[in-house]
This record gives sequence, C-alpha cells and structure tokens, in this order.
Amino acid sequence: MALIVHKYGGTSMGSPERIRNVAKRVAKWARAGHQMVVVPSAMSGETNRLLGLASELAPSAAQTSYYRELDMLAATGEQASSALLAIALQAEGVEAVSYAGWQVPVRTDSSYTKARIESIDDVRVRKDLDAGRVVVITGFQGINPEGHITTLGRGGSDTSAVAVAAALQANECLIYTDVDGVYTTDPRVVPAAKRLNTVSFEEMLEMASLGSKVLQIRSVEFAGKYKVPMRVLSSFTPWDIDLAEESKSGTLITFEEDEKMEKAVVSGIAFNRGEAKISVLGVPDTPGIAAGILGPVADANIEVDVIIQNISKDGKTDFSFTVNQGDYQRALELLRDKVAPALGASEVVGNPNIAKVSIVGIGMRSHVGVASTMFRALSQEGVNIQMISTSEIKTSVVIDEKYLELAVRSLHTAFGLDKSE
Amino acid sequence: MALIVHKYGGTSMGSPERIRNVAKRVAKWARAGHQMVVVPSAMSGETNRLLGLASELAPSAAQTSYYRELDMLAATGEQASSALLAIALQAEGVEAVSYAGWQVPVRTDSSYTKARIESIDDVRVRKDLDAGRVVVITGFQGINPEGHITTLGRGGSDTSAVAVAAALQANECLIYTDVDGVYTTDPRVVPAAKRLNTVSFEEMLEMASLGSKVLQIRSVEFAGKYKVPMRVLSSFTPWDIDLAEESKSGTLITFEEDEKMEKAVVSGIAFNRGEAKISVLGVPDTPGIAAGILGPVADANIEVDVIIQNISKDGKTDFSFTVNQGDYQRALELLRDKVAPALGASEVVGNPNIAKVSIVGIGMRSHVGVASTMFRALSQEGVNIQMISTSEIKTSVVIDEKYLELAVRSLHTAFGLDKSE
Repeated sequence: MALIVHKYGGTSMGSPERIRNVAKRVAKWARAGHQMVVVPSAMSGETNRLLGLASELAPSAAQTSYYRELDMLAATGEQASSALLAIALQAEGVEAVSYAGWQVPVRTDSSYTKARIESIDDVRVRKDLDAGRVVVITGFQGINPEGHITTLGRGGSDTSAVAVAAALQANECLIYTDVDGVYTTDPRVVPAAKRLNTVSFEEMLEMASLGSKVLQIRSVEFAGKYKVPMRVLSSFTPWDIDLAEESKSGTLITFEEDEKMEKAVVSGIAFNRGEAKISVLGVPDTPGIAAGILGPVADANIEVDVIIQNISKDGKTDFSFTVNQGDYQRALELLRDKVAPALGASEVVGNPNIAKVSIVGIGMRSHVGVASTMFRALSQEGVNIQMISTSEIKTSVVIDEKYLELAVRSLHTAFGLDKSE
Repeated sequence: MALIVHKYGGTSMGSPERIRNVAKRVAKWARAGHQMVVVPSAMSGETNRLLGLASELAPSAAQTSYYRELDMLAATGEQASSALLAIALQAEGVEAVSYAGWQVPVRTDSSYTKARIESIDDVRVRKDLDAGRVVVITGFQGINPEGHITTLGRGGSDTSAVAVAAALQANECLIYTDVDGVYTTDPRVVPAAKRLNTVSFEEMLEMASLGSKVLQIRSVEFAGKYKVPMRVLSSFTPWDIDLAEESKSGTLITFEEDEKMEKAVVSGIAFNRGEAKISVLGVPDTPGIAAGILGPVADANIEVDVIIQNISKDGKTDFSFTVNQGDYQRALELLRDKVAPALGASEVVGNPNIAKVSIVGIGMRSHVGVASTMFRALSQEGVNIQMISTSEIKTSVVIDEKYLELAVRSLHTAFGLDKSE
C-alpha cells in the first residue's frame, strides 16, 4: 500500500462527465489498496468566468487593493470542483471528503494572487486517510497568518499537489494533464520529438523555466526541495486502463542520476517565442550599472529574462537583456528617455522579434564540447546567434525569431534526440 | 451614526449591473456616516446551477451521506457574490472586505444543509467597522464545531443577516427584497391589499409560518429572540433615493405594541394553497393515539400542518390533519394500509384539495368576537368551514380550495383592511 497524490487540471475537471471519469480513476487506485489524496483545479473556464465578473465590476481590478477579494472570489472555483469530485467519488461507492485550503490548513504567506506555501498540516488529512477515506484538497489556495484566503497564482494547483505530497511524505505525486509526458521538445515543432520516460529534477526545472508549459516551475522547485517523486501523465487514457501500466506511463521526474541519464548528454530542447532584445551601448563601466539599468525596468513591472554584460572596452561596456514582446516598446522608451541619459550611455538599440533556444541536460556537467556542438549545428543552418547564456545544465542562445523552428529541429537531430530511446 | 445590516437576495445580486447598484446603495449609507454590514445571497440561479452539477454526478445526491459535500459546494455561491460585492464597493471608492461564514466565524450546529446558528463572534467584524470598512458577510452558511462548512438551508441568508445584526447589536436589519414590504394579504388575490408600515414580530411570525414568502420564518424567530428591529423593503427603488425616505420605506417589524396596533384587530390575512386533509375516524380513544397516528407519518418524512382531534363519543374519536398535496396519496395509503388497522380505526377519509386561510392580529388578544366575525363573513359567502384551529393571535380555517380567493377577499373586507391606513 502506498500513499499517492493525484492532481487533475481544469480540462480533466471540465464537465460532470469528466469529473465522473476522474472519480472512476481515483476509485480504481483506492480499490487497489492505496491511500489517495486528490488535488483538482477549478472546472475549466470557471476561474476566467469569475475574474471576468470582477473586471466588469471594477475595470481596474488588476490593482493590488483588489487582490484580497480576487483571491476570495477565485478560490471558490476549486472549492466547488473539489466538492463535486468528492460527490462523484461517493457515487462510485468510495468514501470521500473534500477540504478547502484553509481547512487542511495549507498555510501561505500574505502575497495575495501569488502566495507561497509555507507549511501544510497533515493531521486532519492523515486521520481521514487512516479511516479509509479519499481526501480531496482544493488546489491553488491556502490561508495566510491573518486568516484570509490566498491563491498561489495561475497553475498553482501543481504546486499545491506537490506540497501536499511533501507534507504527507507521499510515495508519488501524479500530475494528470492533457499531454502524456515531457518531450524532448515541442512535438508541434519537431514531429520526431520523443517522450522521456524519466527526466531529472534539474532538467525539468530548466525546461519549465524555459517555457515548457507541462508543469508550473514552482511545483518542480517544491518537488526538488522535498524530494517528491513526481510523474506527468495523461488524463485522457481510459480510466480503466490497467493500474500497473498506468503507474509506469508518462514521465517520471527523478532525483537519482541513473545510467540512462549518464548516456544522454542533452535531454531536451526548450524554447521561448515572443521575446525581444534591448541593448544599452557604451555605458560607462562603473559599479552599479546593472542596477542602474535594471532597477528602473523592474520598477516599471517589466520582467527580464536573459541578461548579458560584455567585457568593457575603454571604460565603456554594452549591456543587453531580453523582455517579453508585449513589454518591448515600454522598456525601449524607458531606457531611451530616462535611463540612458542618466547613465551617460551612448545608444539604446533593440530587436522586437527574437526567440530563445536552449539545450538542457544533466549530462552536460560531465561532457565537454556540448556547447560547440550546438553552435556548429546552428551555424550549418545559417542561424546567427545574437546572445549566449549558460548554466551548469543548459546552454541558451538568442536568435532571430524566424529561425526558431529550424534551430530547434537541427538541435534535436544534432543531439541524437530523433532516435527512439 | 448607527450600525446597520443590509441583506440582499439573489435577484438583487443577479448580475454585475445589479451588484453595482447594491454597492452604490450601500456606499450611500456608508457615506451618510453609518457603520455598514452587508449580507448577500448567491447570484440568482447559482445555487441551482451548483446543485444541478451535483445531481448529475450523483442522482441520489439527496441522501444525507452527501450533505456535507453539498454544503461545501453550495457555500461557494455566497462566497463569490460577497467577494464581488466587496470589489464593487471598492470600485465605488468605499473600503470593503468580505468574509465567509467560517472567517467571522458564524458557528452552527452540525446539521448539514439545515444548520442552526449557535453563535457569532463580533471581534473581527467590529475591528473592520471601526477602521471604517464596510464588511460583507456571506449569507446562508457557517462552520460547525468540527470545522466543516454548513449551510442554513434555502432562504438562510435572511437568518444570517438577522443573526449578524443580533451579534453586533445593530440598530436595524434591512432586508432588501423583490417586494416593497409586508401586505395585509397577497395583492395578487386581493388587489385592495395594503402595505403595512409596521407589523408586530408575533404577527410576522404567524404570517411567515402561514405561507407569506416575504421572510424566512427562522429569521423572524431570531429577530424576536434578540429583539432585532427588522425592516422589509424593496431593492428595486433607485439606489440614489433619499436616504431619509428609504429608511422609512417598507414594513418595520416591531417589538412594541404601539397605538396603531391596538386599533387594528386583524393585521393581515394569510393563506396556504395546495394542502390536503386526512381524517381517521372512529379511533378508540386511548392515550397515545396522536402519536400512534402521527408517528408513522413523521417517520415517512411527511410534514403535517393543522392537527385536530375532536372530543370522544362512545370511547371513539375522530382525528384529522392536513399535509401538502404532494404527500397526500402516500399519507392516505400509509394510514389505510398500516396505521388504521393497527389502531382499530373504523375508516380513513380524505380531501386532496383544501386550503387554509388565517386571520392574524396581535389585537385579537384583547378583542372578543373576532373569530365569530370571521365565521359570519365566510358563511355569508357560502364557504363551508371544514376545520378550525386557533392560537392567541391567529385563527385558521380549512376550506375547500376552490373557495380560497373568495374567502380571502371577503375576510379582507370584513376586517376593514381594504381602507387605507
């Protein structure tokens, strides 16, 4: 007997029929003798419906003064879907009880709309599990020290599930979603992309942060911190698929560097479309210029991705970074009108259509020449590299957006990912 | 400066536009210097939508084993509408905060789907009021001693509002609804029906229990127990109506017997359609026959209204009672097949189409001849009285359903209610 946490996304909970399928699947696991905790998202569309009502009432509802009430509002979506799932489980003949985050309680900090989980009490849940009940816990939400409801932000239910699994020291946390696992790259770009049976936690972290939408990055961080074995698998297989088969499907995110991982130098190709690049040229190279440039950018609530500072020449340096395309104009004007004059920079230039492509692999730690293989593959295809950024297990390049698909495909081939595992 | 509780029903909260109107009205009261607490119902249709989803998942969701989860589900409707109202208030420039029942907390017993409020803590709410905030509290729900969400049953938001007003010792509890007050009788039956400016708590209690749908009876009981001045008024007046005028509109439910009440012997005519009558004839008159007849009826979950036992003759008595028409066949069969044979009764007869008409008036206490005026008025119209039941401030008669309108109109005239106040 194991203690298993299942997480189901909004699509899997999207209709009574789908909720019934989730209940049948969970019932199958419970009947196999496992202690089951289920963390569902709100029914698909529900969170948007609620927030849509709010913005009809307050067109400026994005202001922080509304955040507390927006959390109070949005949290009802998961409470309703959790109660519905418990009802569906009971209808399947399985004893079940649902809890909102505050009832567990899932304690968070006080950052409304993007709270972080601080601790989860396991006493209440364990009592129900020991009494043979399936416990359904609302994803996405918790309670802050003052007793107000908080939410974890979009995709927070993944994090809820992993945090619950950590608190209960669950044997595995299964994230049921609309894809059947983690792929070497996006199959829509590279049809030869392969599903990975396993991926290391660190690789997953890089892939999640690099735009792979399979898992919310905070959930992966949480899994890493508490060593929660986590599996991504499809919620669209028939619910009555053989349990042994189901429990080996999808992609397992592991913490041990097994043999397979030693062999594959690069596990996947991640990419981000829709970025823009801005360079501040000829900045006097004095201490604090990074802060001088990025401080005002952060104050304007513009998120920055890759940051590169070249070595200085004649006491001057060039400073480049990437932002989302949606923030490009605003960032460019801010830098041209305010920041560059204040710092005495010579020029601000930009490119609104760039993309970032990264190779990710835990094997890069112990293999030399990985980056040069990457650069050679790209140069053979005539793809010009505009920026390079590296970390221990990934190498990212910034290229013109129009070369994105070509770059991803050529790298996928160059690192041998087209072959089956 | 007064402390005022407003309660708004589902229709008043039915759309963003209507919620905005509620916010504007509440803002007007707050700007006039009052401390404001608002108790909204769920947006109209929402509770039915949620429970509809539940019954799709569990066709037998009416079973008690589902009640805990149904409460968890249904409670989200008021949490969402409360958050939306707080958002709308903030958009009007009024500081506001919403609390779910468990946050106040509103403590109830553990009877899921029909819980009773046991106590309400006022510390948290008072702190917000003193800080100048409007406090929005979810109607219809609370938390039981085990920390589970409970609901008070349909119409429970009235009770929530009065209970909150009692806990805060509010100056007045205003129930905004889709009628503009309490009438001498249903204006659809008697066009000459008049709105009462005041009605005593005891009269209101009788009228509520006699089918007047204006207020939930438990809310009136609560108001009586804690002497909460309560006013029923229309939510369809323009929100910017003069506050002095608004605060005198509708019907005030009072606890003092003022001059006006001494004059009006009868305040209103209440009635219930859709009842049925069953008589068990020739029952041996031994102790315990009432229990012998009504026990099995209650066990079959059939609600009984008027109960009459005639004096016994030759050691035998006749026993009559009324039930809802929907329960008539079931009750009749139960009595014929099981109860009558067991008790040795001679016959069970029934009439599936009767109605109950009642005159209600606190003045009846000190006036003689009220009942005979009633009987005379009915006999002049040729209405045959089948049963009579009296209490200190009301007299009810059971008549053939087809005479209902005629009876109500003739009584309305006979007791001088057609004249303006």
